[in-house]
Amino acid sequence: MGEKVRVGVIGAGVMGHYHCETLARRLPGAALAAVADVDAAAAERAAALSPGAVATTADRALLAEPSLQAVVIATPNDTHAALIREAARAGKHVFCEKPLALDLASADAALTEAARQGVKLQVGFQRRFDPAYREARRAIADGELGAVELIAGTTRDPRPPSVEQLRRSGGLFTDTAIHDVDSVRFLTGLEIVEVFATASTLVLRDGGEGFADTAVTALRLETGALAVITNSLRATYGYEVSVEVMGERGKIEVGYERQTAVRRLTAEGVQHDHVVRFLDRFGEAYVAELAHFVDCVANGRQPEATGADGRAALALSLLAQRSWREGRPVPAGEGG
Amino acid sequence: MGEKVRVGVIGAGVMGHYHCETLARRLPGAALAAVADVDAAAAERAAALSPGAVATTADRALLAEPSLQAVVIATPNDTHAALIREAARAGKHVFCEKPLALDLASADAALTEAARQGVKLQVGFQRRFDPAYREARRAIADGELGAVELIAGTTRDPRPPSVEQLRRSGGLFTDTAIHDVDSVRFLTGLEIVEVFATASTLVLRDGGEGFADTAVTALRLETGALAVITNSLRATYGYEVSVEVMGERGKIEVGYERQTAVRRLTAEGVQHDHVVRFLDRFGEAYVAELAHFVDCVANGRQPEATGADGRAALALSLLAQRSWREGRPVPAGEGG
Amino acid sequence: MGEKVRVGVIGAGVMGHYHCETLARRLPGAALAAVADVDAAAAERAAALSPGAVATTADRALLAEPSLQAVVIATPNDTHAALIREAARAGKHVFCEKPLALDLASADAALTEAARQGVKLQVGFQRRFDPAYREARRAIADGELGAVELIAGTTRDPRPPSVEQLRRSGGLFTDTAIHDVDSVRFLTGLEIVEVFATASTLVLRDGGEGFADTAVTALRLETGALAVITNSLRATYGYEVSVEVMGERGKIEVGYERQTAVRRLTAEGVQHDHVVRFLDRFGEAYVAELAHFVDCVANGRQPEATGADGRAALALSLLAQRSWREGRPVPAGEGG
Amino acid sequence: MGEKVRVGVIGAGVMGHYHCETLARRLPGAALAAVADVDAAAAERAAALSPGAVATTADRALLAEPSLQAVVIATPNDTHAALIREAARAGKHVFCEKPLALDLASADAALTEAARQGVKLQVGFQRRFDPAYREARRAIADGELGAVELIAGTTRDPRPPSVEQLRRSGGLFTDTAIHDVDSVRFLTGLEIVEVFATASTLVLRDGGEGFADTAVTALRLETGALAVITNSLRATYGYEVSVEVMGERGKIEVGYERQTAVRRLTAEGVQHDHVVRFLDRFGEAYVAELAHFVDCVANGRQPEATGADGRAALALSLLAQRSWREGRPVPAGEGG
Repeated sequence: MGEKVRVGVIGAGVMGHYHCETLARRLPGAALAAVADVDAAAAERAAALSPGAVATTADRALLAEPSLQAVVIATPNDTHAALIREAARAGKHVFCEKPLALDLASADAALTEAARQGVKLQVGFQRRFDPAYREARRAIADGELGAVELIAGTTRDPRPPSVEQLRRSGGLFTDTAIHDVDSVRFLTGLEIVEVFATASTLVLRDGGEGFADTAVTALRLETGALAVITNSLRATYGYEVSVEVMGERGKIEVGYERQTAVRRLTAEGVQHDHVVRFLDRFGEAYVAELAHFVDCVANGRQPEATGADGRAALALSLLAQRSWREGRPVPAGEGG
Repeated sequence: MGEKVRVGVIGAGVMGHYHCETLARRLPGAALAAVADVDAAAAERAAALSPGAVATTADRALLAEPSLQAVVIATPNDTHAALIREAARAGKHVFCEKPLALDLASADAALTEAARQGVKLQVGFQRRFDPAYREARRAIADGELGAVELIAGTTRDPRPPSVEQLRRSGGLFTDTAIHDVDSVRFLTGLEIVEVFATASTLVLRDGGEGFADTAVTALRLETGALAVITNSLRATYGYEVSVEVMGERGKIEVGYERQTAVRRLTAEGVQHDHVVRFLDRFGEAYVAELAHFVDCVANGRQPEATGADGRAALALSLLAQRSWREGRPVPAGEGG
Repeated sequence: MGEKVRVGVIGAGVMGHYHCETLARRLPGAALAAVADVDAAAAERAAALSPGAVATTADRALLAEPSLQAVVIATPNDTHAALIREAARAGKHVFCEKPLALDLASADAALTEAARQGVKLQVGFQRRFDPAYREARRAIADGELGAVELIAGTTRDPRPPSVEQLRRSGGLFTDTAIHDVDSVRFLTGLEIVEVFATASTLVLRDGGEGFADTAVTALRLETGALAVITNSLRATYGYEVSVEVMGERGKIEVGYERQTAVRRLTAEGVQHDHVVRFLDRFGEAYVAELAHFVDCVANGRQPEATGADGRAALALSLLAQRSWREGRPVPAGEGG
Repeated sequence: MGEKVRVGVIGAGVMGHYHCETLARRLPGAALAAVADVDAAAAERAAALSPGAVATTADRALLAEPSLQAVVIATPNDTHAALIREAARAGKHVFCEKPLALDLASADAALTEAARQGVKLQVGFQRRFDPAYREARRAIADGELGAVELIAGTTRDPRPPSVEQLRRSGGLFTDTAIHDVDSVRFLTGLEIVEVFATASTLVLRDGGEGFADTAVTALRLETGALAVITNSLRATYGYEVSVEVMGERGKIEVGYERQTAVRRLTAEGVQHDHVVRFLDRFGEAYVAELAHFVDCVANGRQPEATGADGRAALALSLLAQRSWREGRPVPAGEGG
């Protein structure tokens, strides 16, 4: 093994901290070298994971550090596009959490800068690195199902973020549904040609300032196959992510329902716990995506989960949002 | 117990024959007294289930039989409305398979005639008599879930009918999706205020003459809760019917995945069979709905699963079809 | 189809009544012609299932009826052997519930009489007619598992019988464990060479007069493969029957855990009902075994689940009882 | 937090290496300070997990290291007892993998020395630290099941060790069944009063030199409750560990069947993978037991999973072995 890839992480919230742990402890080829967060204590907690890592509250300072080859961006969504541009201008390879941006123009500007500077850009669609999604995609590509006919996916978060968090994240479509939209593209290899979405505000207090927390999105694929995505920001029983793909010859489900190992059978029936947190479900996929990114940086390869994938999913999630707001199906050609 | 209710059955196909068996063997309060089918052999096979039952190829002859108190209509969908009218004029109480008709005008004419003649009319929404659906409805009505937020239902048939059968049935929306639409109303007690559907022809040969075989239907309920229905006319692994209802406090699923009792665990993983036929799933519900109807006739009570329910579900399934054809969401107020 | 086989049923308790229903309604080739039970009302209720069937309180009268070709014996276990002998002397083919007798000498006398009179004799090991057991046996015989190594079976009844019922049934070993012992023989095609059992009285009141209600029986098979059977006369969650067979290449389970179709997911976990009654589990197998018997009588064939099978399982269950009482493993050669 | 507890690990095979990872990376209160293994490369690989940890091939050298407070013994079973004695004489607290020894005399000598030196001794019954076993035990202690009646446990290893490994481990009873015996004691809080075991050599080549690879062990508990343990050294579908405890009021199962998240439903049925490795199942429990041990050392508390527990389970597994060899049930009073 050659030199370790020196990586800085911008944003040390739950996700950023986990990325720091991965770089510090789980990836022999990477070194966590710097952490930036506006919360100095969070930056320091994360930097403490790696001997010699520096903590800062200034993104700029981190990006100016010449010894870093790459950065991981795990800040609020509304800062992603600008940080990608700055990182690219500083010559750093970029791993950025989804979405790339909250609008297509910003996303395009970020992609253009990354291309101009010749830095690698990977988007944090970790499901693409989950063994189950990969196996399902491989099986579908190998023709196990024959032609794909109908896809049903869902992501349900245990509890809603604050309205302030929603505002920074862009809301349910750009923050949550974007994963499901990307999964449809990833699993089938097909493009989406029409989007219809309907949504409601049932969970957020005081109307959620116009943000939705419950949504149904219908998608038409280029072959005429159909997909539907349901999203909810409340699920008392835990984080729920699943997708099923039906085709001529059967159905493949990618599901996950973690039972505790204890099951009770009594006169009242059967009872077991069901606790799923997103790190339980995707902890390994988050490691795998960073391992892939570090490997691409170390060996000069282009990453999967590209900027183009990030842009496509963003465009579709924005179309879903527009469809909901305008109350009509929108063709994919309409742009964001 | 008093006199048995004498019932005639019109239509002795798979469903009609099963109703004949129920009347002949499973309901002590009913007598299968006559069977009509254009296929004389089918009528005779069914009539043979009951000593003294007569077989005929003429619906009119059966309806003219004065000893019959009630009829079960299990003929192709495009004949339902006219038969209801004729039966009502002949003074017979009517149990009619869904849908009431293929258009709202015919449905209304049938309901009007039944009301004018004072006969009872029950529609064959058997899921309303399935213990699981009833238990789910009771739990939701009792507030177990709190406010309902999101409903996802699916009906997938193992294999598509012929185009000729689709033409007589009215197609996927009036023949299949109508069950799921009715389940949303039944389980939640809420009305639907907007419908958007998209559909494709992926399974039927030669384009299916304009009939769809795969569909996604998004529904908005009066409270802002959302529902989605997926339908497919192909599922190699067997008949699939399920619905899940999410609310503030959790989720109730009404599912059904029948495993055979044999399970194999080898180095290749776990394998078990999964065979579900619609009579496996709803055989008891078909008995329960007829038991209810016979009881209502015998005791002068009004049946559940009323003509109004039949009309509402028909209207919604026609709106879904229109939404698909016109490529836009349609408000429930638009009529059929 | 030729003439119907005319069958009389002796014993109209739960099981006998179900056999009467089968003969009257489910088997086109059979006619329920007579029912005998010491409880006249029970005999009459069962006879009423079939037009023309006669009810009696006298077994002898039934056996003397010349028009009967066959009898089903569903009386308490302690009467089986004598009734088989009398039925055979009366020239009737015999279907007898397990066990054949409560001791080997009586069983042998019954088998001898049946052979002398040339009547067919089938024992009510209905699991041998259950599709899952048959499929498992076929797979094992076909070598799917390679050599069999370890078998674990269990039968757990929801609630214990009275001590009076236990006395007439012979107790847990001859009434319950006998099914599991027979399943080991049936599934593997191997003979058992040694038996060790231990048992306790934990459920029955007042010590159960020496009857056990909880037992573990270890079996050694002729190849050195091992088996273990657990039995309990109490299981609050319902009737439980399962067996798993491990071999070189994997494991086949024959299980059955019937969920209701409703599942609740809340912050408290997952909950579903679990109600299994023995007729839910084996209703079809009870029909299949009688269909087989009637077919054998009609067509002069030898039934499966022979008297020899009945004797072998009885011998083993008596050895298990002896092993328990004497506190030592006993070789199969020791006889009953 | 005070000083880290400095721990040395003797034996750096699969289990020892995992303990080294735990001490180096997962327990903030512990420091992996030294590793000994006769395989120098293995010792070095493990020591490399922790900056400053030393590697050696000499157990004695490690035990002589004054800076160590505690040692983890993860060597072959036949070395455990002597190492415990030496470690105790060197004043080190001891965490020792099960079994304590291969005979009771050696176990007693080890316990005596640990007591004399006043060092803590914990035995590696990691199931006692698994959340599911702990929850089951708590529920049973709280009376959820009422009186315990019947326990069925199984441990099945994916593939057999070599005969050389078996010889050093003492064989199936002292190496594998000992876990299940301990679980019965742990879950119920009851003592075992009689043991009967039967076993076979079906998997090992050439007769396994007298070692068994398949076993059934029946246990009688002090209350008359019964237990049965099945063990196999071959299970193509993966590591299998489960236990169910029945009582007056129901059943608690501690199971574990890890599905991959991909499930296929086709005309051939349902298929999913099922891969369980022992570190998948008990990885967290291995961490929890060491965390407990380190905490006990740091804070002067007595560990759970005591030497007495280790002795009791060893005695019972030796009785099972004797029962098998002598072909008779043995009372617990007979000693080893």
